[in-house]
Amino acid sequence: MPSVITILTDFGTADGYLAEMKGVLLTLAPTAQLVDASNDIPPQDIELARLTLARYWRRYPSGTVHLVVVDPGVGSERRAIAVRSDDRFLVGPDNGVLSPALLLPRAEAVVLPVPRGVSATFHGRDIFAPAAALLVSGTPLSSLGSPCPDPVIRRTPEVVRIGDGIVRGEVIAVDRFGNLITNLVTGSAATVEIGPHLLPLQRSYSFADAGALVALTGSSGLIEIAVRDGNAAMRLGVGRGTTVMLRSVTRD
Amino acid sequence: MPSVITILTDFGTADGYLAEMKGVLLTLAPTAQLVDASNDIPPQDIELARLTLARYWRRYPSGTVHLVVVDPGVGSERRAIAVRSDDRFLVGPDNGVLSPALLLPRAEAVVLPVPRGVSATFHGRDIFAPAAALLVSGTPLSSLGSPCPDPVIRRTPEVVRIGDGIVRGEVIAVDRFGNLITNLVTGSAATVEIGPHLLPLQRSYSFADAGALVALTGSSGLIEIAVRDGNAAMRLGVGRGTTVMLRSVTRD
Amino acid sequence: MPSVITILTDFGTADGYLAEMKGVLLTLAPTAQLVDASNDIPPQDIELARLTLARYWRRYPSGTVHLVVVDPGVGSERRAIAVRSDDRFLVGPDNGVLSPALLLPRAEAVVLPVPRGVSATFHGRDIFAPAAALLVSGTPLSSLGSPCPDPVIRRTPEVVRIGDGIVRGEVIAVDRFGNLITNLVTGSAATVEIGPHLLPLQRSYSFADAGALVALTGSSGLIEIAVRDGNAAMRLGVGRGTTVMLRSVTRD
Repeated sequence: MPSVITILTDFGTADGYLAEMKGVLLTLAPTAQLVDASNDIPPQDIELARLTLARYWRRYPSGTVHLVVVDPGVGSERRAIAVRSDDRFLVGPDNGVLSPALLLPRAEAVVLPVPRGVSATFHGRDIFAPAAALLVSGTPLSSLGSPCPDPVIRRTPEVVRIGDGIVRGEVIAVDRFGNLITNLVTGSAATVEIGPHLLPLQRSYSFADAGALVALTGSSGLIEIAVRDGNAAMRLGVGRGTTVMLRSVTRD
Repeated sequence: MPSVITILTDFGTADGYLAEMKGVLLTLAPTAQLVDASNDIPPQDIELARLTLARYWRRYPSGTVHLVVVDPGVGSERRAIAVRSDDRFLVGPDNGVLSPALLLPRAEAVVLPVPRGVSATFHGRDIFAPAAALLVSGTPLSSLGSPCPDPVIRRTPEVVRIGDGIVRGEVIAVDRFGNLITNLVTGSAATVEIGPHLLPLQRSYSFADAGALVALTGSSGLIEIAVRDGNAAMRLGVGRGTTVMLRSVTRD
Repeated sequence: MPSVITILTDFGTADGYLAEMKGVLLTLAPTAQLVDASNDIPPQDIELARLTLARYWRRYPSGTVHLVVVDPGVGSERRAIAVRSDDRFLVGPDNGVLSPALLLPRAEAVVLPVPRGVSATFHGRDIFAPAAALLVSGTPLSSLGSPCPDPVIRRTPEVVRIGDGIVRGEVIAVDRFGNLITNLVTGSAATVEIGPHLLPLQRSYSFADAGALVALTGSSGLIEIAVRDGNAAMRLGVGRGTTVMLRSVTRD
């Protein structure tokens, strides 16, 4: 069974940085299957990369290595780390992008040494890819570096309970379809409020008319606001950070 | 010999939906080779996805599974289907996107059950990917669902013969190079007419001067209109649906 | 150990040309691992493709086949070639895009025959992919065609020494981050001049304040000009061809 290395970067592909990094991976781990998670993270958008990683990292087989290079601090004092969590491995800069895995109770992290003489601008090629290749080949995490007890953690903004059955959240991401992903969750009937719009929580996009706004629970369990056959972000002219309210519906 | 699963979606990559779906595929079919056909179909553009699929699905080895998720109707009553045609398999929504394979005489289709409790917004992850993994692992099509005698079919618009050696067609797609792909075919000398332009059918782009319009038979056998070293769609300001006439040239 | 075929094109992905070519590769070389280097080279940008290829081709294991299809001259008299250089193989049009490999002293090239009846618009599918599949399967280069003693060569523009410790170069590429990649190199302390800006050469982006211009030696050894946490090309409003001066700093 081939071992898997997934790749998440803000490199795009046209400049050849990604191809160069893949060459390092295949030279050091020739039997690994390389999987492009995404190379289209907007430049230096650690926050989107963190949310994207959260979606997929536990969907892969045990032993998978997730290589994540969204690294505005390359060449600075920011550390390079490797992580083991829930039987998967992750490698990347210590800037919070790996938080989804670090936040599990039994996660372990090590600091990867940065030898003199490696590029100060491309740790993806010179530090992270070699570490990913070692991990996918079975090298123990502990032999890659010294323990890192205090990795940088980034968290999804927390919701605020502001009254009886009323919670204030926000848009944390906008996806390609223009759907507004919030940090709100609910297990019961509710109304979602964004700007002047009051939307009953529905089961899927298809409960709205074409072109109408709809609120629903998305595939990762978070409430999102969409326009059926359209783009909610463009329709409403809003984006990350916009306030969204959730009001539980009481049966009486 | 590894089995192949190709992937065609309108997901883009940055949001992690694609990465999540790939994780499901590799968990259930760890030895499959995943091939990105495209994840850049414009959101919900079933028609382009259908034409794109038509180009490639029969180019792959026997047993290949083509996973296609362009699915504006997810969560509605639209069915989920799996298809066997010409010794390849296809999985996707029953919205016509799989028509290129369904139109072959001996195609078989089954309706995939949608269990309660799966996401109503991401059947790619919860219905289609698991079915693709089963098929690539050798599970018979018939065991995946009940027969589907009436899948939705979409067809390329037909050309109209409007006189002696004159056929009216249209632009059915515009490719990345700005080439206008039509629904016209011919085996003989002809003149192609678009707007005020009369273009003799040439053998390749290189028969035109740089910057000049040229009509030729493209790599899938359809007549296309191009600008050498340029972009015909931008030059002419036209797109899908634009009328194109074909006039056979008679030798006298 | 699986053999690798990398793919570099200007096809994009949505039109299905790439998927079609991958199908040909996997039909003829079913055990090859396909690696997307990039399919986002701007249409017909041979120069960027050449620079991108230069970055990665030697990073891959011996025996790797690099398939490169950026081919504005398809269907013309331009030749199709295959190359062996430094124990890797390359296949593509003879338009200079393969120069990074051709310029090594012991490179060998052959001219691939173009049979009658193949598409005059898609040699990627009909000529280059089949040749790549043969090479990755162990077919000797010499059996693919007749020797090509005079392949087309494109070179990076040369710098000009214009005085004592002063060299004039130029921007040869702009990457996704807006970094300006030049043709300048230096092993010692220097000042880099672009327009009115005088920039001491630094070790990495992190030596600049956020938003400030910085000059440094990039990961391929070339001097580049960046904006920390920003986009130098947009800030300065410059691109390929812009003059950049390098002044060595003498210690006295």
